[in-house]
Amino acid sequence: MNLSSKVQSMQYSPIRRFNKFAIEAEEKGKKVYHLNIGQPDIETPACYMDAIRAFDEKVIAYAESGGMNVLHDAVISYFKRLDIELERKNILVTNGGSEALSMIFTTILDPGDNVLVAEPFYTNYTTFAAQAGGVIKPITTVAEDGYHYATREKIEAAIDDRTRAICCITPGNPTGNVLTLDEMKLICEIAKEHDLWIIADEVYREFAYDGREVTSFLMLPEYADRVLVVDSVSKRFSACGARIGFILSKSDLFMDSAMKIAQGRLCSPTVDQVGAAALYTLPQSYYDEMKAEYEGRRNVVYEELMKIPGVVCRKPGGAFYMTAKLPVENIEDFLMFLLTEFDDNGETVMFAPAEGFYATPGLGRDEMRIAYVLKQEDLRRAVELIRLGIEAFNKK
Amino acid sequence: MNLSSKVQSMQYSPIRRFNKFAIEAEEKGKKVYHLNIGQPDIETPACYMDAIRAFDEKVIAYAESGGMNVLHDAVISYFKRLDIELERKNILVTNGGSEALSMIFTTILDPGDNVLVAEPFYTNYTTFAAQAGGVIKPITTVAEDGYHYATREKIEAAIDDRTRAICCITPGNPTGNVLTLDEMKLICEIAKEHDLWIIADEVYREFAYDGREVTSFLMLPEYADRVLVVDSVSKRFSACGARIGFILSKSDLFMDSAMKIAQGRLCSPTVDQVGAAALYTLPQSYYDEMKAEYEGRRNVVYEELMKIPGVVCRKPGGAFYMTAKLPVENIEDFLMFLLTEFDDNGETVMFAPAEGFYATPGLGRDEMRIAYVLKQEDLRRAVELIRLGIEAFNKK
Repeated sequence: MNLSSKVQSMQYSPIRRFNKFAIEAEEKGKKVYHLNIGQPDIETPACYMDAIRAFDEKVIAYAESGGMNVLHDAVISYFKRLDIELERKNILVTNGGSEALSMIFTTILDPGDNVLVAEPFYTNYTTFAAQAGGVIKPITTVAEDGYHYATREKIEAAIDDRTRAICCITPGNPTGNVLTLDEMKLICEIAKEHDLWIIADEVYREFAYDGREVTSFLMLPEYADRVLVVDSVSKRFSACGARIGFILSKSDLFMDSAMKIAQGRLCSPTVDQVGAAALYTLPQSYYDEMKAEYEGRRNVVYEELMKIPGVVCRKPGGAFYMTAKLPVENIEDFLMFLLTEFDDNGETVMFAPAEGFYATPGLGRDEMRIAYVLKQEDLRRAVELIRLGIEAFNKK
Repeated sequence: MNLSSKVQSMQYSPIRRFNKFAIEAEEKGKKVYHLNIGQPDIETPACYMDAIRAFDEKVIAYAESGGMNVLHDAVISYFKRLDIELERKNILVTNGGSEALSMIFTTILDPGDNVLVAEPFYTNYTTFAAQAGGVIKPITTVAEDGYHYATREKIEAAIDDRTRAICCITPGNPTGNVLTLDEMKLICEIAKEHDLWIIADEVYREFAYDGREVTSFLMLPEYADRVLVVDSVSKRFSACGARIGFILSKSDLFMDSAMKIAQGRLCSPTVDQVGAAALYTLPQSYYDEMKAEYEGRRNVVYEELMKIPGVVCRKPGGAFYMTAKLPVENIEDFLMFLLTEFDDNGETVMFAPAEGFYATPGLGRDEMRIAYVLKQEDLRRAVELIRLGIEAFNKK
């Protein structure tokens, strides 16, 4: 029996690949600080489970393929805060941002087509593109430059005749890079000139620090016919297990086509949509508190990282990730050392090696991604462990 | 901007396509009996919401990509009832049977590959295959023969050098056809001789009537390396909105590959997995009652259908669908007539036209699919309305 060339081209999640070594370390009694996965420790707001517990339909029935009205209306009211007007037909509820991305890629990519993404990028993009028969074409960025990519020169150099879209994640995973509104306009302009879709992964929208405005590609109405926004409740409300995401677009052409896929898989889960709708009733103070919390965490991680001689990292402006170059030759060897040989007072630390976030072979071998999803004292200790680990590793 | 040829080849759900006319009829005050969609009216067992309401984790976190242990263990114990031994690694939790099917097709199909399915078949198969770049290759069956296809002659005639799998849904949607264990063995033997995967969609497993045994392709261990079972809580427990399904397979080769896709989309929703695990604790009496309920409904529908002169239908053995040939030239015209012109005492009826369930153009134009998901008195009246409708339609 055959396996498809698509699935053979896919890799296992580099974020989850080292899990078994962490589990072994924990079984041996080591404490492992997990900076490897974007699973926040923040409590999910109680209104999520409260709304689900109050749900009293006797039949847990299929929802509408595009999503439940109660959730559509909640999303519409959330965007009003940002002066963005949406209608129900502009919103397609998906099984997390993940399904939104794979639905978009399936809707726009034919075999051999490519989507531009700045590398390093969220590694599962590769899987979503491969599922659709397409590929990610990277715009390479470097740590020394804060992983910046939003220039006409860099983007246009990557466009070829099989490019179908420019995909931006802002604020960014894994780099924390945040686009300015002017950069977003530039990207839209380039997309228009080359007749490309714009895929805007905005699941970290609210996590923009240092006084940056909360932005969205939906704020640029003149490009609305080509903008496809990916959104999700996972990070914003620390509700990753809800698996509720969205495609937001004013392109009827696109939304009508994506609806064929949405109808095929019937619908997203019913009670999670009810819970997600309640999350959108949270007041502005919730967003402010979360932003302050993560901004504080970022400051701690950055401060501690800067204590490590030889680290290359520009202070990122958003999301809850940081990518940094470490003074080690091979980051995966270093991570294995941390999990299998090193400890300091019985404690060690785990991050995601950045190589899997690059499409260009050989890049990222001395870089790590940190998800700052723990409380400040734990983050301080975790980055200290990276520093102590580097000292021990480089002495070997 | 381009749309993919994949998405352009997809159709809108023929099951949902006539919904707007039904809504218009209802807005005008007509009562519409809905036999068009497989959404049962049976109450979801209370243990589903009870388990969810009792879930008290403070963070609604990502679940494991392959599914939560509590649900794996529940499924393992369910299959013990059928003398089938499974391990956790044989179970992949998916977003409904829908995602199980699209994951399977993506894992085994390259562009141009095909999967054999007896037509008429569950229409969304076409979408799942198209997403993977493949196609459904039909084995044509006819109403006069009870939609029977499980013969070596019929199956082998359809196999070509791009065939990768034989896909069987038993008990069947839309025909209600149930394979015997001998027919299942024959299909496995043919698959082995031609080195094909066997995709067994068994979401209606428990709905086998007239004393038929509850069966599974997992009961044939000698073919375990090529059997991929699709399962779901949707119909079995009237929990369609839970969106919890499964791939079940003893092929490590397959499961390891499908896991790449599963990791890419992270996980199925957490609270629904908790609820689904509780459903599997229901006693044998639950399955017996559901089977008796649906068997009674089938009897009523069949009895009433047989009162219509010119109807062609063999009594189906399972699931909760019936496909029948009606004495009308064009079933879609007839359905439009029922929704827009006809009523009897202010009431009319809706079914799914069968043409969309065929891959071969032109077939099924005088056939309908009925989902007998209403209580008996409503089903009796609904089929009476079809009879009265035919009389009125053919008088026109």
